[in-house]
Amino acid sequence: MKFAVMGTGIVGTTMAGKLVTLGHQVAMGSRRADHPGALAWAAATGEQAGVGTFADAAGFGEIVVNATNGGATLEVLAAAGRANLSGKLLIDIANPLDFSKGFPPTLSILNSDSLGERIQAAYPDARVVKTLNTMSAPVMVQPSLVPGHHNAFVSGNDPAARTEVVNLLASFGWPEDDIIQLGDITTARGAEMYLPLWLRLFGVTGTPHFNIKVAWG
Amino acid sequence: MKFAVMGTGIVGTTMAGKLVTLGHQVAMGSRRADHPGALAWAAATGEQAGVGTFADAAGFGEIVVNATNGGATLEVLAAAGRANLSGKLLIDIANPLDFSKGFPPTLSILNSDSLGERIQAAYPDARVVKTLNTMSAPVMVQPSLVPGHHNAFVSGNDPAARTEVVNLLASFGWPEDDIIQLGDITTARGAEMYLPLWLRLFGVTGTPHFNIKVAWG
Repeated sequence: MKFAVMGTGIVGTTMAGKLVTLGHQVAMGSRRADHPGALAWAAATGEQAGVGTFADAAGFGEIVVNATNGGATLEVLAAAGRANLSGKLLIDIANPLDFSKGFPPTLSILNSDSLGERIQAAYPDARVVKTLNTMSAPVMVQPSLVPGHHNAFVSGNDPAARTEVVNLLASFGWPEDDIIQLGDITTARGAEMYLPLWLRLFGVTGTPHFNIKVAWG
Repeated sequence: MKFAVMGTGIVGTTMAGKLVTLGHQVAMGSRRADHPGALAWAAATGEQAGVGTFADAAGFGEIVVNATNGGATLEVLAAAGRANLSGKLLIDIANPLDFSKGFPPTLSILNSDSLGERIQAAYPDARVVKTLNTMSAPVMVQPSLVPGHHNAFVSGNDPAARTEVVNLLASFGWPEDDIIQLGDITTARGAEMYLPLWLRLFGVTGTPHFNIKVAWG
């Protein structure tokens, strides 16, 4: 498949690298087509990897992954262009973290809304699925970094789109039984509002290689 | 020990019942000393159980448990009286859920604040510890309802107070290794903001007998 990965940070490069490993073609989108980090990533990755503006990448991708800083996401998607997102699976793995007031960050969207919902509302023709935002980038694409069973969450209005994401996660190594479909995109509120607890657990565990497992009888 | 349990709902009666079972004396506090539900609970429970106003109960208890609706907590504690809380361990197991806008509820305190912090700020002489708010009442006092290992979180400024709570939870059946001390009372933000995810997981699991386990290597 052809993927666009929006964002050149640790989440974007980790996700893009995994997708290439799995045989996909990946265009990494950034503000500038000559973004040094994106160019370096593509050069080191090989011919399956490309770089471009957000619009270039979104136009290339059959599936678009939002790996931007959540505070910048809507601006980035506007730069990507509505026509380049229409009808596409748009996988949102970002969090609306606001570091402007120091650490730990607060959330800039929450409670009766979420970043996932904002994206879906702004691009009603896109099939938005929220997932993987509840863990560090390495765990997203290599769940075996965390011992035993633990969960990824999936939220989205389109059941077929959620299934596509479940299949993608399975290709990353996620056992299907460990993928919990929370429901429609409003359930992204729960996944995003978990982040303050995640940040504290990061402090307690001392490793980014942790995750939560939902246990029930 | 002598406990005050503030609140006559399912959380309050479940907690009070468990404390009595463990040999403690419990005064259940409510708005009225003749609250029918509290009187019925005490009559059914025996001589270790008493009822009274919030002030009566808080005056009786060496340890005070806040099991009220989070939206009413500060008003309840004001009714309990500052002198009746001073110096005491105040265990906050409530959530600031706001059902006024329908289901699922939103949080009335969040992001850069939490109910636990509000209580500590309002009663600086009390030793506030947030715990058990991340699960249903039955699981709080009978963790074996959920199979395998799963976690309770503890937040509070006073390490000795946190240790008292860890010991109390151990008496409920919580393995000490399953009790995670998140840190000071500001970490209650994480535990409280997990509630929107809890509510969605309740919908997915279909049982209140579930909880999360933090897994790491």
